[in-house]
Amino acid sequence: MGDFVKRQELYDDKPREECGIFGAISATEPVGYLTYLGLFALQHRGQESAGIAVGDGRAMDAKRGMGLLTDVFRDGLPELKGDKAIGHVRYSTAGASIPVNTQPLKVGFSGGNLALAHNGNLTNVNALKHELAGKGAFFHTSMDTEALVAIIVSADKQAIEEKIVESMRKVEGAFSVVLLTDDKLVAVRDKFGFRPLCIGRLADGWAVASESCALDAAGAKFVRDVKPGEVVVFTRGGQRPESFFFAAGTKEAAHCVFEYIYFARTDSIIDGQSVYLSRIAMGRELARENPDLKERVDAVFSVPDSGTTAAIGFGMESGVPFLEGLNKNRYVGRTFIQPTQQKRDVGVRMKLNPVRPLVEGKTVAIVDDSIVRGTTSGKILKLLRDAGARELHMLISSPPILYPCYYGIDTAVRKELIASTHTVEEIRQYIGADSLRFISLAGLRRALDAGDSGAMCYACFNGDYPLWPKDQPDGRQAAESGETCQCRGEGK
Amino acid sequence: MGDFVKRQELYDDKPREECGIFGAISATEPVGYLTYLGLFALQHRGQESAGIAVGDGRAMDAKRGMGLLTDVFRDGLPELKGDKAIGHVRYSTAGASIPVNTQPLKVGFSGGNLALAHNGNLTNVNALKHELAGKGAFFHTSMDTEALVAIIVSADKQAIEEKIVESMRKVEGAFSVVLLTDDKLVAVRDKFGFRPLCIGRLADGWAVASESCALDAAGAKFVRDVKPGEVVVFTRGGQRPESFFFAAGTKEAAHCVFEYIYFARTDSIIDGQSVYLSRIAMGRELARENPDLKERVDAVFSVPDSGTTAAIGFGMESGVPFLEGLNKNRYVGRTFIQPTQQKRDVGVRMKLNPVRPLVEGKTVAIVDDSIVRGTTSGKILKLLRDAGARELHMLISSPPILYPCYYGIDTAVRKELIASTHTVEEIRQYIGADSLRFISLAGLRRALDAGDSGAMCYACFNGDYPLWPKDQPDGRQAAESGETCQCRGEGK
Amino acid sequence: MGDFVKRQELYDDKPREECGIFGAISATEPVGYLTYLGLFALQHRGQESAGIAVGDGRAMDAKRGMGLLTDVFRDGLPELKGDKAIGHVRYSTAGASIPVNTQPLKVGFSGGNLALAHNGNLTNVNALKHELAGKGAFFHTSMDTEALVAIIVSADKQAIEEKIVESMRKVEGAFSVVLLTDDKLVAVRDKFGFRPLCIGRLADGWAVASESCALDAAGAKFVRDVKPGEVVVFTRGGQRPESFFFAAGTKEAAHCVFEYIYFARTDSIIDGQSVYLSRIAMGRELARENPDLKERVDAVFSVPDSGTTAAIGFGMESGVPFLEGLNKNRYVGRTFIQPTQQKRDVGVRMKLNPVRPLVEGKTVAIVDDSIVRGTTSGKILKLLRDAGARELHMLISSPPILYPCYYGIDTAVRKELIASTHTVEEIRQYIGADSLRFISLAGLRRALDAGDSGAMCYACFNGDYPLWPKDQPDGRQAAESGETCQCRGEGK
Amino acid sequence: MGDFVKRQELYDDKPREECGIFGAISATEPVGYLTYLGLFALQHRGQESAGIAVGDGRAMDAKRGMGLLTDVFRDGLPELKGDKAIGHVRYSTAGASIPVNTQPLKVGFSGGNLALAHNGNLTNVNALKHELAGKGAFFHTSMDTEALVAIIVSADKQAIEEKIVESMRKVEGAFSVVLLTDDKLVAVRDKFGFRPLCIGRLADGWAVASESCALDAAGAKFVRDVKPGEVVVFTRGGQRPESFFFAAGTKEAAHCVFEYIYFARTDSIIDGQSVYLSRIAMGRELARENPDLKERVDAVFSVPDSGTTAAIGFGMESGVPFLEGLNKNRYVGRTFIQPTQQKRDVGVRMKLNPVRPLVEGKTVAIVDDSIVRGTTSGKILKLLRDAGARELHMLISSPPILYPCYYGIDTAVRKELIASTHTVEEIRQYIGADSLRFISLAGLRRALDAGDSGAMCYACFNGDYPLWPKDQPDGRQAAESGETCQCRGEGK
Repeated sequence: MGDFVKRQELYDDKPREECGIFGAISATEPVGYLTYLGLFALQHRGQESAGIAVGDGRAMDAKRGMGLLTDVFRDGLPELKGDKAIGHVRYSTAGASIPVNTQPLKVGFSGGNLALAHNGNLTNVNALKHELAGKGAFFHTSMDTEALVAIIVSADKQAIEEKIVESMRKVEGAFSVVLLTDDKLVAVRDKFGFRPLCIGRLADGWAVASESCALDAAGAKFVRDVKPGEVVVFTRGGQRPESFFFAAGTKEAAHCVFEYIYFARTDSIIDGQSVYLSRIAMGRELARENPDLKERVDAVFSVPDSGTTAAIGFGMESGVPFLEGLNKNRYVGRTFIQPTQQKRDVGVRMKLNPVRPLVEGKTVAIVDDSIVRGTTSGKILKLLRDAGARELHMLISSPPILYPCYYGIDTAVRKELIASTHTVEEIRQYIGADSLRFISLAGLRRALDAGDSGAMCYACFNGDYPLWPKDQPDGRQAAESGETCQCRGEGK
Repeated sequence: MGDFVKRQELYDDKPREECGIFGAISATEPVGYLTYLGLFALQHRGQESAGIAVGDGRAMDAKRGMGLLTDVFRDGLPELKGDKAIGHVRYSTAGASIPVNTQPLKVGFSGGNLALAHNGNLTNVNALKHELAGKGAFFHTSMDTEALVAIIVSADKQAIEEKIVESMRKVEGAFSVVLLTDDKLVAVRDKFGFRPLCIGRLADGWAVASESCALDAAGAKFVRDVKPGEVVVFTRGGQRPESFFFAAGTKEAAHCVFEYIYFARTDSIIDGQSVYLSRIAMGRELARENPDLKERVDAVFSVPDSGTTAAIGFGMESGVPFLEGLNKNRYVGRTFIQPTQQKRDVGVRMKLNPVRPLVEGKTVAIVDDSIVRGTTSGKILKLLRDAGARELHMLISSPPILYPCYYGIDTAVRKELIASTHTVEEIRQYIGADSLRFISLAGLRRALDAGDSGAMCYACFNGDYPLWPKDQPDGRQAAESGETCQCRGEGK
Repeated sequence: MGDFVKRQELYDDKPREECGIFGAISATEPVGYLTYLGLFALQHRGQESAGIAVGDGRAMDAKRGMGLLTDVFRDGLPELKGDKAIGHVRYSTAGASIPVNTQPLKVGFSGGNLALAHNGNLTNVNALKHELAGKGAFFHTSMDTEALVAIIVSADKQAIEEKIVESMRKVEGAFSVVLLTDDKLVAVRDKFGFRPLCIGRLADGWAVASESCALDAAGAKFVRDVKPGEVVVFTRGGQRPESFFFAAGTKEAAHCVFEYIYFARTDSIIDGQSVYLSRIAMGRELARENPDLKERVDAVFSVPDSGTTAAIGFGMESGVPFLEGLNKNRYVGRTFIQPTQQKRDVGVRMKLNPVRPLVEGKTVAIVDDSIVRGTTSGKILKLLRDAGARELHMLISSPPILYPCYYGIDTAVRKELIASTHTVEEIRQYIGADSLRFISLAGLRRALDAGDSGAMCYACFNGDYPLWPKDQPDGRQAAESGETCQCRGEGK
Repeated sequence: MGDFVKRQELYDDKPREECGIFGAISATEPVGYLTYLGLFALQHRGQESAGIAVGDGRAMDAKRGMGLLTDVFRDGLPELKGDKAIGHVRYSTAGASIPVNTQPLKVGFSGGNLALAHNGNLTNVNALKHELAGKGAFFHTSMDTEALVAIIVSADKQAIEEKIVESMRKVEGAFSVVLLTDDKLVAVRDKFGFRPLCIGRLADGWAVASESCALDAAGAKFVRDVKPGEVVVFTRGGQRPESFFFAAGTKEAAHCVFEYIYFARTDSIIDGQSVYLSRIAMGRELARENPDLKERVDAVFSVPDSGTTAAIGFGMESGVPFLEGLNKNRYVGRTFIQPTQQKRDVGVRMKLNPVRPLVEGKTVAIVDDSIVRGTTSGKILKLLRDAGARELHMLISSPPILYPCYYGIDTAVRKELIASTHTVEEIRQYIGADSLRFISLAGLRRALDAGDSGAMCYACFNGDYPLWPKDQPDGRQAAESGETCQCRGEGK
């Protein structure tokens, strides 16, 4: 059987989300367990590590570990029964995934205990850490999280909300934060609102979460999104939170469009828009933008699961029947051994298998959400071709990704983005499609039009960055020259 | 957070498949790894344990363990590089899941090494074991597998194929078997062909598998199904197999209908019928049998994933749009902690969450494949009701299950089968649907009509058992009185 | 730090014992736990695996695993609360240590349940297995244990004691056995009494054990040793056992002398002789045989721990002060990483360190129990030499080992026995001692004279084998030519 | 078998050492592996956790974990190949043993990377932490280690040696420290020299260690002890270290006497005295102080292993033969299950078993090193009594422990120290000895007289504390009233 290698993942041709965060406060409900439920619904946002911190007003207990939520808490939650909790799930990367980089981070400071978890990517963190070290500070980790804590704790104010408002003015980047002190739960969202964060009402308290699906899971009723630049302070479960702003907020709002295209769960509603209906609308746009396919194709398939909703939308608009032409093995994602020599083919064949009677001799459209490096699409089309497909028309529910993201999304560096170095025709040839059609940026905007589309960040498609990363002196050049982007630290 | 319990599974309202088996022979291909690939595609047939045995003509190496295939073989396959291999995945039960009950079983006998794995349930095994023990035999396990080996090995013939033909005449029940000796790979299917087994061609050899999707995964080209009562002997990869029959075979064929309804993967073709197209046809039948719903419902949902294909079929026939109204959390299935008091509600909420904008104020049809105990359907309908659904019409793509199975399917005992003790109207009330419609047995037969529908076993729907289990002296009464069925041993 | 290797053990220059066994019967005492206690006191006889089987008259529950007793039963004993139990610990080898070779073996047979554990090595097992296979038997393992079970179960008698007596007449080799049926605990010792086995009285029952120290640990009072060729049957805890003989017994007795020299614990009394006093007597003999050392050496050290008691005896007889000149690191024995290049020196330095003030400028005697390959002695003497010793006189409390053992002791094959291929003077030079003195065979006999010294097996010293191993056709030649001995199977 | 409990340890009647530390610097030798070797020789000083940090001038890599050294580094050392390393082993307590409290602690600060490990107990750490927190500092752990790092890093000096000298003037307590920066290895010992620390020469570098036995293990040649109040700075392996003093040093020296009595390994030489010869001398003193026993006792035993060397000394002085009357099970120390009801007796019986022929009808002296709570001595004497001993005379090689330790030794709080609340006669009755004789304080001083006995701390025997713990406002009262001592934090 030869020489085997283990591959953590069979597919790596998708943008990666960074993290999911959750918080709960209630004197009567099991806040630690509600956080567990909430994080379980956010597991798609991060599978590398998980953690929960619980506070009861005096003590604070944190438990963190590598792996899925259910693995980390196999033997139970933090033992403390408290009235406030926060939690975190972190995404999985190949390299620097080490236990010390788990969240929430818990420390003791002059005000007692403090725990913090965040989602996103600071863009001036090196400068801020350098400044603090000059004053005698030291750092256990290279996480943005510890830098955030240091900046907040050392702020020259007394109350925690003042410390936060003061220090958030200095911090640049994309960040949604939940923070726990002995007597408060605080939610913070950067001034552009890059990463999502919303508030829900518990029977006797409050919850905050990266996505509304986590509120549903915890039994909380959605109230509203945290606003860009807002600091929301929850002091008691039975009492309305207080709100502070460290930035003007909504005018500059630049919500990440990829939450709608790929990251978020379809049952979430983010900044006023249903993720499910957005994807149906993207599929409809694709149908409208490609009227020739209506007559031409026998069926529309999706690349499961991320392309499915848009494929259904395409079917609804065009009248072409949606069929599950590719069976997805539900056990993929686990460590899989394979002989080094056969690496190329086995991966995709393990994950997807054509339903031959739907493919043989047929002309089909296949919908996927995005193409990053382009490595996977070709393999999928080959599977279908080998199963006897006559014509294969690839539809992508996002425009070509031309620019890297500095706000916490691990898309490839620019030179690895296939669309930034190749024409659509070149990509079509590379993946072996009979035709390749991306949704237009205008079409995507229309699909999101039901909501506040003007407030989206489309930088990865059009290079229009709301905020330039200070940690990269020659950043724009880097982006343009295709150099490796250094701005993604360990702690995002 | 109180008192937590761990639940292996959140859902247990489905019939359980027993096992998946695979075998490969080739002098030049990596048979152990091909078996690994094949079993990975059969993982849905059993998650409790996995094992692979490899032989090279002289030695035989087996590796088995509890858990998913990828867990059992995390550190590599059996080290022997051989030219023949068989493998097995076994389903997960709550109780008697112990390491000793893993397959393939490997022994030494007068003819050298022998390994055997099987799928199914023997119905006269107690009598056969009793007879052997009287002659000085002893048993390490209570598995049917060991009994099968003992019966075959002690048969008064010389060649292994003769031993098998001789002994299979004595063994009653449902069984598909793969067997390895130092120089042969053998595939056997009981005379009714209850459980599936098919043959594929490797580049330089042969493969056998429970389902054709496993042939695809291993890169084998489907050739034909093993016939009821057939023993197929593969001696060399480059040479055609020999075929022996211990029973007349096809006339009595009684293929399990639940493979098409629920168990098998949609990309498999079993005994000449596409599983995917069968389910689309069931959905179409449901639409034809319930024409009133066409105008009445806004959308058709499925209970994911098992009801999805039939729901799409319903949508195709009726014109009602198919939408994914229930989001399924892809991380469900792992050990989940929960407070004992809240057990009731958390389970289903963790797994499924309504996509609220699709549900609120809407009348919808929901398609599921079967109702066994009826415990889950009610919870799902309540979720949708709580999300604001106006009317909920439940459609089931199998008829009511009235009788227990003695051929290896772990449906409940009769008194736990809700349909055997309640009317459809009572079930409708119990699950809280506005209407409840099962497919008719005639409709199901029509959906399967493209193939050889006469050769199906519908015993769970109509009590027409092809073979009465000897191990249950008062068996029929048991079935009729609703007593617990003892015929399901540990080893199936 | 380079390239590391893991070494299971740092030292491998000692003969290896095979196993320890224990059994208990009592209606009122916790027999499973008493077996655990007894095995813990026998852990020195085997560290590779451990197992316990418990029976209650109807059911039988066995738990086995790789590793130390405390690791195997970390999560508790077999759950069954019974009135009879047996247990086993097995030694650790580099190669064939696999889970399937753990004991006790538990099977079902015509008489119900049966469990068996044994210590020793059968010498005609291949022939016996061949005969059984011809009658349709098959074997799950290559262990002698399974062969023993097969031979007993297939014996043409009804009662278990009759089956045992009948079959033990056919089995050749060294074996002490404990066996459990649903209603009996049976102890068996081969007709030479190679391996030890003794009986103790519990408050309300009986215990059997490889060594009397295990009876002490379980709170049993030593009664007597099982006699060579004896089958002792315990039916009820409150009732005296019945005794059967399958061989004349004591006349031929050939107890293993290495139990007294090295294997057994000093607090055990075996076949009437105190292990501790035997070793003191060996040390005294060494002093009497080497009167020149009395004036010459400043102190006597031991190679800890195995040489310590004889060193104390030497000190008592000679008046030379016994001092602990070598500190032994109590944490040795665990997996230790080391760079491949430095393998040579690190091992012994990690285990032993000289107490420099006792060594510097001193002439010392060092006592060890035996030299097998001679690889370690040289390293130890070098340590002392490097610490400044003036003269080093090595004393060995056993004669040179010239012949391999066929009765269950894993001494090296003949060509690896340094004393069988080198003169004492050559060995002295090889290990770098100023003088090297082995106890004489006559001196060893005198040291054991207090007991029944005529009944010992001294074959490894004088080649006088009580029984020739049938499984080795050209056995004697093999022994004499230095060929690898094949008689040590996996299951001893 | 009933209800089982797991006990981490069977014995807890000994004072506990805190930690062992080690450091190495060399451009050509494998410093990480040498640290591993050194720590292995210090394992007796701490079994709870272990860690190693390696630096190469730019990067620093640390690996830490719970458990024994060999467990923590089972899969290899830190990957970085550097020229400097430090390491740590930490003792095992029942309660607060959590992963976050492992050492060395590694941080980034304005000067680059810094790692620190220490042995001892700070006595004014709460005040120092409070002061730092007021300036915006925060703490991840409650370890003294992190406080030490914070104090050093925040010192208003530039060079690390200046920061250390400056800050060590503020820190009170017992501490031996090894510290690593990107370009230096530093060793520090508190001004009383409570805990040991010595310097050795590597072939091409330097090593520092808690005990000289660790220098031996790493192949380093002992050079000298670090002086009280000294900071030794190693910059290059090939270059002599620089020395700084933050306190006058040796005049106040107060080395812990328990290192010689119990903690240190017998092959270590600490502050000029051989541990082995000190213990022999204590045994001789016991013989001289108790001349009546010379004629009265048949033999002298020890409580193995801690009493053995003194017992040998007693035998040498008195002429009474030293014999190993108690066999110690070498596998004790691992997790052991036992039925709750039987907890009392099983523990000691599992660990020790009398060698009956040495005990029956005999009058014996038994030597142990100390009595803390007195719980174990009675059990041991009962074992011997039950084995038939006639008279049992208990000898203790330390005086009665009357006062708690504030310098890092976990003796009981005062009210649990049996000698502080009972007369010797009461203790004799409690443990069931025929006589009980402690060494006199004068005798102990004489035994240590070969070295610099005036420089010892005997506070646990005479209450003469060199330094009063600030963290305990009412400390002396506490000590005198028998209140629980709060000064032992998690990080010592």
